Amino acid sequence: MKQINGGVTAAAGFSATGLAVGIKKKSEKKDMALVYSKVPCKVAGTFTKNVVKAACVKYDMDVVENSPFVQAVVVNSGIANACTGALGYEYCGLTAKATGEALNIPESAVLVGSTGVIGAQLPIDKITEGVKLMAPLLGETVEDGTLAAEAIMTTDTISKEIAFEVEIGGKTVTVGGMCKGSGMIHPNMCTMLAFITTDVNISKEMLTKAVKANVEDTFNMVSVDRDTSTNDTMLVLANGLAGNEEITEENEDFKKFSDALLAVNTYLAKKMAGDGEGATALFEVVVEGAETKAQAVTIAKSVVTSNLVKTAIAGHDANWGRILCAMGYSGAQFDPEKVDLYFKSSAGELKIVEDSVSTGYSEEKATEILSQPEITALIDIKMGDAKATAWGCDLTHEYISINADYRS
Amino acid sequence: MKQINGGVTAAAGFSATGLAVGIKKKSEKKDMALVYSKVPCKVAGTFTKNVVKAACVKYDMDVVENSPFVQAVVVNSGIANACTGALGYEYCGLTAKATGEALNIPESAVLVGSTGVIGAQLPIDKITEGVKLMAPLLGETVEDGTLAAEAIMTTDTISKEIAFEVEIGGKTVTVGGMCKGSGMIHPNMCTMLAFITTDVNISKEMLTKAVKANVEDTFNMVSVDRDTSTNDTMLVLANGLAGNEEITEENEDFKKFSDALLAVNTYLAKKMAGDGEGATALFEVVVEGAETKAQAVTIAKSVVTSNLVKTAIAGHDANWGRILCAMGYSGAQFDPEKVDLYFKSSAGELKIVEDSVSTGYSEEKATEILSQPEITALIDIKMGDAKATAWGCDLTHEYISINADYRS
Repeated sequence: MKQINGGVTAAAGFSATGLAVGIKKKSEKKDMALVYSKVPCKVAGTFTKNVVKAACVKYDMDVVENSPFVQAVVVNSGIANACTGALGYEYCGLTAKATGEALNIPESAVLVGSTGVIGAQLPIDKITEGVKLMAPLLGETVEDGTLAAEAIMTTDTISKEIAFEVEIGGKTVTVGGMCKGSGMIHPNMCTMLAFITTDVNISKEMLTKAVKANVEDTFNMVSVDRDTSTNDTMLVLANGLAGNEEITEENEDFKKFSDALLAVNTYLAKKMAGDGEGATALFEVVVEGAETKAQAVTIAKSVVTSNLVKTAIAGHDANWGRILCAMGYSGAQFDPEKVDLYFKSSAGELKIVEDSVSTGYSEEKATEILSQPEITALIDIKMGDAKATAWGCDLTHEYISINADYRS
Repeated sequence: MKQINGGVTAAAGFSATGLAVGIKKKSEKKDMALVYSKVPCKVAGTFTKNVVKAACVKYDMDVVENSPFVQAVVVNSGIANACTGALGYEYCGLTAKATGEALNIPESAVLVGSTGVIGAQLPIDKITEGVKLMAPLLGETVEDGTLAAEAIMTTDTISKEIAFEVEIGGKTVTVGGMCKGSGMIHPNMCTMLAFITTDVNISKEMLTKAVKANVEDTFNMVSVDRDTSTNDTMLVLANGLAGNEEITEENEDFKKFSDALLAVNTYLAKKMAGDGEGATALFEVVVEGAETKAQAVTIAKSVVTSNLVKTAIAGHDANWGRILCAMGYSGAQFDPEKVDLYFKSSAGELKIVEDSVSTGYSEEKATEILSQPEITALIDIKMGDAKATAWGCDLTHEYISINADYRS
């Protein structure tokens, strides 16, 4: 497996584009993206578990469940189409209809996505007009994929895309993807919005299996602010153009594809965490020595989501007591007298706590380690062999600035 | 029942004081408090459910369980005595011993409390010396109680105390208390530190029953930052000096006392929420129309703890979608199409959402309502008659400033 240039247009047969159609207040900002496969795709998806689901989430759940194939995804940023009642759902259908007409594919082969402010209605005329404008702009280059990745951003500061190649049955299979994150990020079944394209030849059943397993260790281990969105959507489109023998069981080929998907998802998940709203650092929490994976997951997520831990990271302050505190209220049981803790980054590694008391470490060295853009807290609870990794970010003034007047 | 002046010294026979002994870095800041009853007290308490418990919490749990009576509480601020190993626990005993000697009461009649930085050891010589200095300073006036309330503050901006009088069996019973809160506030069994004194005559069993019931609706409904502390402690000392017939069952007298305790705890809980670290507003969330109280509690707590809701409140922004979103990921089931939402404050009341869509309310009026120091979000899920109230605060730049360099 190797990383290659590109994102959603990396796999054979996929094209994309992005455009500013006037949904966002700043009219020069791109706010619509279109991804298209020239041949029909199998699709699998995971969606938010929030009881309050955006119209587009409900719409896509139906498409993923019932459509014989899909061929396009159309996404807007700026307005989330959540809490918009029957009209919001109707707009999803109108968007799909316009896209189907523009691309000459069935309406049922179109998935829709939205991200942005909750509660406002979409400007449906701008959307349907936008689709018409975008169809002739679709392209297969890396740059075309980047246009789409940029168009789904809200408060993201960088676009997020990646692609990997892997050889399966003598054929080169490509898996590429893009996502957006930033705020309201605490995926419970997957991220804000992530779109993965691949030319692998795989059955829908096995594609779904790969996606569900994968998401648990990647997007579901990310948190920016513990707010699980109404819009979380992850979609994987597989068009089969790589020409490998169709994957229909959990064989070696399935394993290779799953690993490539895992590489894409892990990269995107970490990018999303590190670009959390206002973040200055990616904060990785590794819990080792757990009795069960569930225990490790619970502790890692509790630490990575603690406001007090996150503000300490923002201040480059080795305030490790907050980490032990967050472990303690996580709900997981462990021996509170047996915890070891290390901080790691490009500036080195330091053992901070042994058996739950300070090692007498150098505060100066700890601050140096915690001043890097990617920081790891490694926690060993010395009970077993299970482990888990969660990703988040520091909590800064900028998060407050962004969210105290997001709608202004 | 009526509110009266004072706090922990309001009830008959209680005296208190506070002193700066040099635990906090700013040496002029008071950092030790002593509360004393001239006669033995029954005691009940609730403590943090965090797996990582401060030494003082473990120590007090033993005293509350096993001591025949208590007569004093000695508290320091600045250092939490959490994650301090065997030495930290030993220091609790040394503190109690010094207090017993200074007040001429058994060591086993002394409760200890700590709040502040986790992981550092107490300067035990300053503590034992401080106890000796404080003993002769004890006084029964309102001002003496305030000295104690001030001495337990950390990042609190105001001291928090209250007292109520109620007539029970022809006798005037007084319940007074003080607490501190501010950061790492998400009590799971009670608050950071709250100390209630009363002269009621009541059995230990009934005192415990009143405390446990009470805490669920008061301190356990407060959250500043979702971080459940290692030190949460609530203690109620009852010395019987009011002279009422001893309360030994759930009769009318018990009800009257419980109501007075509820009034004290509610007041303190709201004060703690409104004075959360960096807060500019008390944020109250009322959930009505629930099928069960548990459902109402789950939804109310989810909304009051959402970083995105809290930053919107800080920005006086009626970003109601975030409230529906936080309800949706709470874990409680409800009909996402049937939610009504109102904002209320001293500036008026406004219906924002009906059946989960915007009412087309005036944004200007909403902002005016949300610009007051005490704000209520009233949520009706129209399923039944159960309700719950939670208290929190907005999330501001100041919270980040306080916590990004708390130890500096």
